[in-house]
Amino acid sequence: MNTMEAIHNRCSYRGRYKNTSVPREHLTKIMEAGLAAPSGCNKQTTSLIAVDDKEVLKKLHAVIQPPIGETAPAMICVLTRRINAYRDKCYATQDYSAAIENMLLVIVELGYQSCWIEGHITDEDKIGYQMAQILNVSDEYELVAFLPVGVAEDECVRAKKLPFEERAWFNGFGKE
Amino acid sequence: MNTMEAIHNRCSYRGRYKNTSVPREHLTKIMEAGLAAPSGCNKQTTSLIAVDDKEVLKKLHAVIQPPIGETAPAMICVLTRRINAYRDKCYATQDYSAAIENMLLVIVELGYQSCWIEGHITDEDKIGYQMAQILNVSDEYELVAFLPVGVAEDECVRAKKLPFEERAWFNGFGKE
Repeated sequence: MNTMEAIHNRCSYRGRYKNTSVPREHLTKIMEAGLAAPSGCNKQTTSLIAVDDKEVLKKLHAVIQPPIGETAPAMICVLTRRINAYRDKCYATQDYSAAIENMLLVIVELGYQSCWIEGHITDEDKIGYQMAQILNVSDEYELVAFLPVGVAEDECVRAKKLPFEERAWFNGFGKE
Repeated sequence: MNTMEAIHNRCSYRGRYKNTSVPREHLTKIMEAGLAAPSGCNKQTTSLIAVDDKEVLKKLHAVIQPPIGETAPAMICVLTRRINAYRDKCYATQDYSAAIENMLLVIVELGYQSCWIEGHITDEDKIGYQMAQILNVSDEYELVAFLPVGVAEDECVRAKKLPFEERAWFNGFGKE
């Protein structure tokens, strides 16, 4: 699969996963892709924890309410350090977003499905903070998102997008 | 080139570009990849303008001081609408960052180089705002980054990264 195919095949999968484990080798490749993303002033603010231990997954899913990705045999938790790249400029959100996108593409390339789950765990109920406590995450880091990883049981229905010409132009705003 | 190769070959190129034009077909493929990125609640907050007209490039580079990417035959300007995905939650930064990462990977796959230029144009001197005015960008949109696109004249030197085991773990913080 080339990059364009992975990009256009990627889909936010919210269904059930098959009971097929994800080898450590694959989780490593996925995380390597995340860490290879650029970061503002190369501050490398993003860190990752892959979870494939059933007991740890069970503890994490106990706090993820309403449940999502709970049948996936693995997940990758995304941590960030909100440090400044220079002066008062922090690019931590850009950094972890680029890392997540890289990981989603490699997940697709390796034959798995996933979904970027962020809003659900960073809302008022602070599920991400509870997950960080379960994983003994140091106080300097914030757990901002997680990606379930596994083989999908169902087809993934891609989100409908606006046509190209309503979002992309040449040499000036709105120009085709 | 598969996705992992594109991810690991991507490099923030700040050198000179060859005087080889980038076909419209390639600029379209790059922008299609950007628009295919996920967005919070599918709000599609990211829009793009590819610039390959020499006069327009000249006007844009006149305001980009100190200069960067000024020898590239094309650039892609990244626009965002900072609208909420739900309640007071805005994921525009995540959205355009994922779009930029997709575009950087396809740029590499097509044999070009680029660099994510954001801090330089969103600083106090508001270069991005001046660029948006040149491109007649509507007030609802903010120009937050641009990507030069072209064939590199020199080798790109990849940023040094911390070792895997200092940034990625299994089943708990700091656990190998």
